[in-house]
Amino acid sequence: MSAWEKNIRKVVPYVPGEQPNIPGMIKLNTNENPYPPAPGVAMALQDIKTDRLKLYPDPTAKLLTDTLAAYYKVGKDQVFVGVGSDDVLGMAFLTFFNSDRPILFPDITYSFYDVWAELFSIPYERPKLDHNFRIRKEDYYKKNGGVVIANPNAPTSIYEELDVVRDIIEHNQDCVVIIDEAYVDFGGISAACLIKEYDNLLVVQTFSKSRSMAGMRIGYAFGSEKLIRALNDVKYSYNSYTMNQTSIHLGVEALKDRAYFEECTSMITKTRSRVMWELKELGFSFPDSKTNFIFATHEFIPAEELYTALREEKIFVRYFKKPRIDNYLRITVGTDKEMDALIKVLKEYIHKRK
Amino acid sequence: MSAWEKNIRKVVPYVPGEQPNIPGMIKLNTNENPYPPAPGVAMALQDIKTDRLKLYPDPTAKLLTDTLAAYYKVGKDQVFVGVGSDDVLGMAFLTFFNSDRPILFPDITYSFYDVWAELFSIPYERPKLDHNFRIRKEDYYKKNGGVVIANPNAPTSIYEELDVVRDIIEHNQDCVVIIDEAYVDFGGISAACLIKEYDNLLVVQTFSKSRSMAGMRIGYAFGSEKLIRALNDVKYSYNSYTMNQTSIHLGVEALKDRAYFEECTSMITKTRSRVMWELKELGFSFPDSKTNFIFATHEFIPAEELYTALREEKIFVRYFKKPRIDNYLRITVGTDKEMDALIKVLKEYIHKRK
Repeated sequence: MSAWEKNIRKVVPYVPGEQPNIPGMIKLNTNENPYPPAPGVAMALQDIKTDRLKLYPDPTAKLLTDTLAAYYKVGKDQVFVGVGSDDVLGMAFLTFFNSDRPILFPDITYSFYDVWAELFSIPYERPKLDHNFRIRKEDYYKKNGGVVIANPNAPTSIYEELDVVRDIIEHNQDCVVIIDEAYVDFGGISAACLIKEYDNLLVVQTFSKSRSMAGMRIGYAFGSEKLIRALNDVKYSYNSYTMNQTSIHLGVEALKDRAYFEECTSMITKTRSRVMWELKELGFSFPDSKTNFIFATHEFIPAEELYTALREEKIFVRYFKKPRIDNYLRITVGTDKEMDALIKVLKEYIHKRK
Repeated sequence: MSAWEKNIRKVVPYVPGEQPNIPGMIKLNTNENPYPPAPGVAMALQDIKTDRLKLYPDPTAKLLTDTLAAYYKVGKDQVFVGVGSDDVLGMAFLTFFNSDRPILFPDITYSFYDVWAELFSIPYERPKLDHNFRIRKEDYYKKNGGVVIANPNAPTSIYEELDVVRDIIEHNQDCVVIIDEAYVDFGGISAACLIKEYDNLLVVQTFSKSRSMAGMRIGYAFGSEKLIRALNDVKYSYNSYTMNQTSIHLGVEALKDRAYFEECTSMITKTRSRVMWELKELGFSFPDSKTNFIFATHEFIPAEELYTALREEKIFVRYFKKPRIDNYLRITVGTDKEMDALIKVLKEYIHKRK
């Protein structure tokens, strides 16, 4: 090993869900939205002036942050934007978690949290979810360097009521509390209403799921002016221009069409209810999902076997070979047609195995 | 101050050049290209399928990295891409500079280097450029944790020949050497040809200057497979999907049109020669520029005064209130018409002041 190699940062990178591109495949593995972005987005894309691309984008992405502020009824200085919520969360870890005390997040949750902690050498502890995959709020009462809660949680799909979130924040006034709400639009209530009360609360959301724009990389966060200023200071110390011009314009357009957004999320939640019923009939059980995915385990067929069987039929779902959840599949809620195909394959496979 | 505020990362953010948007202004302050991107870019933008935006982009941005590899005749595993060269450089600092020894870069250079070092708590030293703003290669012979050289350098515009670069790399086989070539297409020769010889060399370039695409945020780097793998591991530990779909597609299109690229850079270098001549006539002096900007000082009028006078005429140039360079203006080379307007205003102002 050369001398310079010894100074390379040691990391075990996050492994994102595979992005296969196979004709006829059904992709239910990365919680993307099956419906296209709002119609205005296509128009905005046509309207982008290529000539303008020679200029740097507005580093503050003011057009987008102002639109988000108006939409969510928060102050213009209470909004931060980044290249997907991963950028927002990573930046928040770097900005706020500089204590010697460990930060806390559940043992089963978004698997990027421990990757960021390792990357930035942040000590961390992972209190265990209970046997129903529920958060035990008392686990977050002890002294710590910060708290991160995904709500609804992933991959469990479980939503904790706002009073649980409030209780955790209430017990953590000496550190920054991050509530990661990537899936909140599918049935939860956002903690954004609490930022006025708690100046140490950061609420993170994304355009990747409920707004069908994973391909554009737009994430955002709400918090007190102090929190947002600190985040922006670190952001401007890393890369002043992260939001490119197309993301800013297309993001604004997506926010304008509230009716389309509500129609899409409601179609997904309806499909979800129907599919949960059918999965139950086939011998699956799962927590009540408030997300655009179902976290399901079968009464007698191992999850990994089902994952492989589905894959052979070009149906991709997510399987995590990890303690406590290695007998579960995380199945994205797609269109009704896609879910019919999934149910059909499962039905046949389970029938054969009986 | 609340307890949580004590754990906020302390930074002094980089201050990017202002992005005014005033009708009739002439913007020569952020080294943007005055010409639009290649015609194919506009077409590629029209061809982007909005429906596809619901899906995550390819985390490896394979379409773009493969096109870069073919264009620059390097291996597909020798290319890294990021959200502008700032993202590439910031990621490289985080990945490679983890030694206790200080990293080295000139006292006068791109002012983001010390910001990244501070952000990631990397010790650093800044050897002084000589009185002609030239790099003294011997300053980089001592033991260190890494070396960063902008070539051509900014804001000085000076290009060091490849044998100087090679000599610095040759003397630094125990650390990673980064050559930042944001401006190399305006008259320098890239060190990319050296990556085969030195597996610790990272060469960074950007679409923001010579390819007129600052608004799209595309940066890239060449290096040995080992270097690129380490960079990708850290990148995937921070944000798996940084290049959005539009950037990938438009970037590929820009690379396809080599003739347009050569025509644009040649128009800029021609304008540069002519303007240097006229500035000299007006009493300015400057190093020989191999970039798309001129770093000029006047024989009797202070730079700050000229900066303000130009601003009043809606002509924006860059002024750094920093030791050793506070009597210089960094003037981007715009179109011939823009430069005529600049020269006219300067001529009148200097005449009045005589």
